[in-house]
Amino acid sequence: MIYIGVDVGGTGIKVGAVDEQGNILSKVKGPTLPERGYEAMLHNIADLCILAATESGHTMADVHSVGIGLPGIYDPARKLVPICTNLNWHDVPVEQELHKYIDCPVFIDNDATVAGLAESVAGVSKGTKNSVFITLGTGVGGGIILNGKVFAGSHGVASEIGHIMFRAGGEPCTCGNRGCWERYASATAIIREGRKFAEQHPNCGIAKAVGFELNKIEARTVIDLAKAGDPDAVKIFDNYVDDLAMGLTTLINVYDPEVIVIGGGVSNTGDFLLNKLRAAYKKFVFCKNMPYATIELATLGNDAGIIGAAMLGKED
Amino acid sequence: MIYIGVDVGGTGIKVGAVDEQGNILSKVKGPTLPERGYEAMLHNIADLCILAATESGHTMADVHSVGIGLPGIYDPARKLVPICTNLNWHDVPVEQELHKYIDCPVFIDNDATVAGLAESVAGVSKGTKNSVFITLGTGVGGGIILNGKVFAGSHGVASEIGHIMFRAGGEPCTCGNRGCWERYASATAIIREGRKFAEQHPNCGIAKAVGFELNKIEARTVIDLAKAGDPDAVKIFDNYVDDLAMGLTTLINVYDPEVIVIGGGVSNTGDFLLNKLRAAYKKFVFCKNMPYATIELATLGNDAGIIGAAMLGKED
Repeated sequence: MIYIGVDVGGTGIKVGAVDEQGNILSKVKGPTLPERGYEAMLHNIADLCILAATESGHTMADVHSVGIGLPGIYDPARKLVPICTNLNWHDVPVEQELHKYIDCPVFIDNDATVAGLAESVAGVSKGTKNSVFITLGTGVGGGIILNGKVFAGSHGVASEIGHIMFRAGGEPCTCGNRGCWERYASATAIIREGRKFAEQHPNCGIAKAVGFELNKIEARTVIDLAKAGDPDAVKIFDNYVDDLAMGLTTLINVYDPEVIVIGGGVSNTGDFLLNKLRAAYKKFVFCKNMPYATIELATLGNDAGIIGAAMLGKED
Repeated sequence: MIYIGVDVGGTGIKVGAVDEQGNILSKVKGPTLPERGYEAMLHNIADLCILAATESGHTMADVHSVGIGLPGIYDPARKLVPICTNLNWHDVPVEQELHKYIDCPVFIDNDATVAGLAESVAGVSKGTKNSVFITLGTGVGGGIILNGKVFAGSHGVASEIGHIMFRAGGEPCTCGNRGCWERYASATAIIREGRKFAEQHPNCGIAKAVGFELNKIEARTVIDLAKAGDPDAVKIFDNYVDDLAMGLTTLINVYDPEVIVIGGGVSNTGDFLLNKLRAAYKKFVFCKNMPYATIELATLGNDAGIIGAAMLGKED
């Protein structure tokens, strides 16, 4: 038996056939083109699934299940994707649409959850029972694996860790609250603080690095300068790491996993992030005299979406 | 078969025999007297277990297991209670001590966890799969039930919800961090804000209520005045409820339970708390267009400790 994994992103769709151990056997891809509507997109996804099976030397009869990871929430009770902003989806019956073209079981989950599952099957958290995957990008997403299985809670919204109230009354969040963790732990936070600092200090190294066009300051700008030792950039990055670390201790206090895996754009900072983060985390962790989760960087990169989606259908 | 539950508090020990459904068959009690040392205390607890079994018309041969709830953490890997401040315990081998006197299986967990289990077996969250119990007292404790079972995480510290980082950089906490949720959601927070207000407004209703002896201001002082319509007390209580509600939405974002059960001293405020809390919670909840947890008050009161501790040993 093989498993098909579908990674639906804002711009591209990647589909692969995966074996029981999480090894990718074939990969195919296409553009997302959300403007064509969900029916056409899901028809295309079904075709890509059949193609991925064929390219791995199998037919759909060999496919155990199709799993899909997407940047939204799935409501298992109503069997709908209630909202997926990037795709402009509202109450989309993904499973029902796909069953027009393929007849194996279909599993759907959030992209961060899927990446967390991939790491726990074939990546850095392999062999652990409880792990938390966090993705640090425009926002902060989470994938929670408890007892070796994806934990989704009672209504499918149990991994919205970016919206943990972190600095109540603080920065306004897209969700309508003020002070959500992702306002402080995402790449967006580094950009905001970098630009704010450069506005207040027009001749600082950060402003110079972008030729004084402050709207060109990216997370990378600040991180690269911090790596090079620019004291202002170091300070901004260290404050960022402290806020990230404090949020990780919250994750320990609620999930107490064996490992926290860091993925997403900011994780490409590598050891420069990891070493600072581990040191900060030690300062804030609650039960210092008990064993607690280690922090690791994600290892599967772009393949995590396909592998994790495929593994959604894997039984014990 | 019967189950013995032991509720170890700072001043008293309550022990009961409980049936499969969580009904209490007998109750006995004694003083805690932590100064006598853990060996003497655990010998006494073993005697109380035997007495509770006898009083229910059974012998220890009919006892499936003994469960103990205590105000500390249990480390299942080392089979020790690493710390229990109220009892002055450090690395106490509870199970090993009890096995000197009784030979059935022994289960140990945190008192808030035990109360949460009790509510999910025989109280307001009965019949739910995922529930979160929070106790609002001097601090904030949590009992997490996932898939009908106590969730303790990988190292036994997965319900330290009082130490969720809530207002980073805010009020100093006993744990060493600043801004933990329990600094804002516990009875202690109401006392602190009440006293602070009275210091700044020496002729306010709160100051008058305690004859201007501000160190006599308790949570109850502020709550009773708020119920009576004192505008300052209402404001303090409403701010408290907002901070409590924001923290509840964090619990939704990480656990997504069917119900959140409110226990502990502050829960005795009853509907005055519940109605305000439900309204505030609706303002802050993340996925407003998805179903989400209801909020209920705990119903088992003082019996929760015995029932939940007894149920620790119950198999599926």
